[in-house]
Amino acid sequence: MANTFINSTFIQSEYSDVANAKQGDNIRIYGMIQNVRVTKWGGFIIIRKPDGLLQTVIQNETSSIFDENGEKIGINDLSRETAIILEGQVNSANIKDKSVKYNTIEIAVTKINVISKPSTTEVIDVNALKFSDDESVLRYKFDNRQVSLRNPKDMAIFRVSSTIAQAFAEYLVSVGFTQIFTPKIVSEGAEGGANVFKMDYFGKQVYLAQSPQFYKQIGVGVYERVFEIAPAYRAEKHNTSRHLNEFISLDVEMGFIKSQEDVMELEMNLLRHIIKTVREKCSHELQLFDAQLPCLPDKVPAFRLSEVHDLLFNENLTPDHRGEDDMAPEEERAICKYAKENFGSDFVFITHFPAEHRAFYAMNDPEDPTLTLSYDLLMCGIEITSGGQRIHKEEDYRKKMIERGMNPDNFRFYLDTFHNGMPPHGGFAIGLERITSFFLGISNVKEASLFPRDINRVAP
Amino acid sequence: MANTFINSTFIQSEYSDVANAKQGDNIRIYGMIQNVRVTKWGGFIIIRKPDGLLQTVIQNETSSIFDENGEKIGINDLSRETAIILEGQVNSANIKDKSVKYNTIEIAVTKINVISKPSTTEVIDVNALKFSDDESVLRYKFDNRQVSLRNPKDMAIFRVSSTIAQAFAEYLVSVGFTQIFTPKIVSEGAEGGANVFKMDYFGKQVYLAQSPQFYKQIGVGVYERVFEIAPAYRAEKHNTSRHLNEFISLDVEMGFIKSQEDVMELEMNLLRHIIKTVREKCSHELQLFDAQLPCLPDKVPAFRLSEVHDLLFNENLTPDHRGEDDMAPEEERAICKYAKENFGSDFVFITHFPAEHRAFYAMNDPEDPTLTLSYDLLMCGIEITSGGQRIHKEEDYRKKMIERGMNPDNFRFYLDTFHNGMPPHGGFAIGLERITSFFLGISNVKEASLFPRDINRVAP
Repeated sequence: MANTFINSTFIQSEYSDVANAKQGDNIRIYGMIQNVRVTKWGGFIIIRKPDGLLQTVIQNETSSIFDENGEKIGINDLSRETAIILEGQVNSANIKDKSVKYNTIEIAVTKINVISKPSTTEVIDVNALKFSDDESVLRYKFDNRQVSLRNPKDMAIFRVSSTIAQAFAEYLVSVGFTQIFTPKIVSEGAEGGANVFKMDYFGKQVYLAQSPQFYKQIGVGVYERVFEIAPAYRAEKHNTSRHLNEFISLDVEMGFIKSQEDVMELEMNLLRHIIKTVREKCSHELQLFDAQLPCLPDKVPAFRLSEVHDLLFNENLTPDHRGEDDMAPEEERAICKYAKENFGSDFVFITHFPAEHRAFYAMNDPEDPTLTLSYDLLMCGIEITSGGQRIHKEEDYRKKMIERGMNPDNFRFYLDTFHNGMPPHGGFAIGLERITSFFLGISNVKEASLFPRDINRVAP
Repeated sequence: MANTFINSTFIQSEYSDVANAKQGDNIRIYGMIQNVRVTKWGGFIIIRKPDGLLQTVIQNETSSIFDENGEKIGINDLSRETAIILEGQVNSANIKDKSVKYNTIEIAVTKINVISKPSTTEVIDVNALKFSDDESVLRYKFDNRQVSLRNPKDMAIFRVSSTIAQAFAEYLVSVGFTQIFTPKIVSEGAEGGANVFKMDYFGKQVYLAQSPQFYKQIGVGVYERVFEIAPAYRAEKHNTSRHLNEFISLDVEMGFIKSQEDVMELEMNLLRHIIKTVREKCSHELQLFDAQLPCLPDKVPAFRLSEVHDLLFNENLTPDHRGEDDMAPEEERAICKYAKENFGSDFVFITHFPAEHRAFYAMNDPEDPTLTLSYDLLMCGIEITSGGQRIHKEEDYRKKMIERGMNPDNFRFYLDTFHNGMPPHGGFAIGLERITSFFLGISNVKEASLFPRDINRVAP
C-alpha cells in the first residue's frame, strides 16, 4: 500500500485562465498584489500575472476579504506584494494605464483570501521604479534586483528575451540543427587575449569559456549544424552600458557551406523568424517600451569594409576613413542610415575585414589573403553579430597560428578535429541581452540581464 | 550601391532531404564518409547525416568520383571522414546493420565530389569504438572526444539529450512557465558545503553556482512559474560513474502551490511529455541502445520515508532500516521493484525526509517539524530528482538559519525576497546527463556529457 498516489491531472485546473476570460465569466485566480488604491466605496487592486497586470475592483458592500487566518479584513489591510486567491466576475472595461496588460476587462471582486503576506508593510514600491541611465537609479534597481524585477517593464524585458531564445531554438531545430551543451570550464581559451577569468580546478589553472567556438566547430564535425544557448564570460574591466562580464550567447555553427553568404542567409532567416515571433507574442511588451521592431526586408545589403569607407567618403556622409582596418562608430551609424534610406533595411552586413583584426580561425579570402571571409552585422547603427567562414584544414590553422606566434601544441584537441576531417563551415553568435535591449530601445545592456555582472557587481 | 544583397531564400535548398527520399528519386546530398568498404565491382560508402547513417553503393562502371581539384579518382582513394557531395538514385534496400538509420533505402551513386579531406589517411576509426565501463576504453574515448563523438552511438546519446531538453522547455512553456537565465558567477552559495568551486573576480572571492536555487525562487516572485536549462557546478572529489563536476541542470520552480503534491504532479506530467517525445522522435536512438523507456502510469505511488522502511522490513524485502533518516541503496532498488510489481510504475516518490538531511530552504512539515515537505523521485532504483515545497516566510528562514548556525546576514538579497512577499512555492531539478543515461541504459553518466568534467579531466 502506498501512502498516496500522484495523479497526472492538469495541475491547478480549478484556477481560471485570465487570457481567455470573457465578460460575465465567474473567475477564480491567484496572483500577487502589485498595487492598491483605496476609495470611499472600496478601491482598486492591481494583480500581477506572469504576462502582465490585471485590474480588479473592490466594493466594500459586496466584496469579502479574509486574512491568512480566515478573519475578515478590509481593503486598507491589504498591502502590495501580498499573495492572494481572488474570486469575482469579469466586466468589460477601457483602462488607459498602459502598464495594465488586460485593459479591456476588470474583475468585480466577490472574495479575496490572503495566502501569504510580506513581513513588512513597507515593501519596495516597484511601480515607482524609473527607467533611466542615471547611475544612481540603475544602482538602486540592481542592488534590489530580487524585488525590482517585479516592476512591469522589467518583467516585460525578460518575457521578450525568453521569447527570443525560444524562437532562436525553434527556427534552428526546424532547419536541421542539433542543440548542444558544451563545457564552460575549459583548459584552452578560444578568443585569446587578457579578458579571461581564471580559476583553480583541483590544482590546475583553467578558464571560464569566452565562447563555445572550439566546441561548436567540433559539433559541426558530428552533427553538421549545431546551436547552443549558454552563458559566456569576458573578464572586461570596462564598466560601460555595452559591457557584461557574463552574458547569454546564442551560438550557431553550420557545415557544408559554399561561402560565408550561406551563413549570412541563415542569420537573416533566423532573425526574420525571431522578429515575427516577438511581434506576435510580445505586443504588450513592445507597447510598454514604445518599441518598433527593426525592418528586415527580403534583401539585406552587404558591403565590403573598403567599399563602406569609399562610399561614405564619396557621398560626404563621414570624414575620410579610407584605408582604415575597422569601422569607425560614426561610419556604423552612417552606413545604417544609408541602408535604411536606400534599401529600407535596419540591417547591414559589413564583410571582408582584415585578417589581422579577426580571430585566428577566420578563413582568409583566397583572392586577397590579407582579408578574411568574415562579417559584422549592424542593426540600427550598432554591431549585433560577428560571423563568417572558418578555416577547415589543419595545415591552414598551423600556418596561421605560427604566423601569429601561437603555439599549435596548446591547441591539441582543437587541431585534432581538423586532422580527422572537417567540412567547410561557418557560424556566428548573438548576445541575447544585446539583441533584447536593441529590440526594446533600452540603452544599457545590463537592464536586459536578469542579474547583471560587471566589474563592481556580483550580487544579487 | 551595395556590393551584394543577402536573400532570404531557404538555405542550401539544392540539397535533398534524406528523410523524405523515395525509391526512384534522384538525390543530391552532402555528408561525411563514415566508412568505406571496397569490393571487386565498386563498394559501399556509409554517409554520416546528423540523424544517422545512410548506405550508398559505388559501381565502378557507372559511378564517377572527383577529388578536390576535379580530377577523377577511384573508391580506393576515398578515406573515412572525407566531406563529400554525392548524387545518385534512391533504391529500396533491407539493411540489417542496425547502426544504419536509413535501413530501407540505399543510394546508387552516379557522382561524388570530394570537398574536404582529412590531413591523414589514418583517421581515428570511430566505428570501432566500444561501449564499455572499462576505464581504459572510457579514457581513450574521452581523450579523443573531438572525434570519438562521430561514433553513431555517441551521436545518438546527444540527440536524445537535446530532445529531452527541448521537450522539457516545450511542456513548461505550454503550462505558463517563463524561461530564465540566471548567473553562474555568484557571491553566495545555495547548497552550502565544501563542494563549491571558488574563483577570483576582480579581487573578490566568488563561486560557481551549484544550482540556481535562490534565483529560481526569486523568479517565482516575478513570474509565478519559471524554469532554467543551464550548467551547474559541484567541486566533487569523487570520480565515480555517477558524478560530474559540471552538468546541465533542468530546473523548475512554481508558485501558488497548495502542497508539494502540486509539484509532484507537475513533474509527472512533465516526465510523461518528455518520455512521449523521446519515444516519437528517437526510435532509432532507442534501438541502437536496445533501450526501453520507463513505465509511467497514470497513478504513481508515493511513500513516506518511514513507511518505506516499515514496508520493506515487514515484507521481508530488505533488512531492517527502520528509524534511519535516509534511504539505503538496497531500499531504493527494493521499493522500485515493489512499485513495478504492484503498481506497474518505474517511478516512486519518497516523501517527508528528516529536516536535518535536507537543505535549509525545505519547508518543515507543520504536523511534525522534524520532517520536511520534500521528496525524492526514484526511477528504476536510482534517485533522479530532489524536490519539494520551500519556506516562503522570512521569519521561518531566519529561525531555521539560526538553528543551523548560519548567519542570515550572508543571505541579504535572498532573505529580502521573502521580506518583500512571496507566495507558497516549490520545485525540483533534473540532471540532464543523468536522465539521458537512465533512458538509454548507460551505466556511466559521463557518457551522457558531451565533454565530461571530473577531478582528472578538463579537456577536451
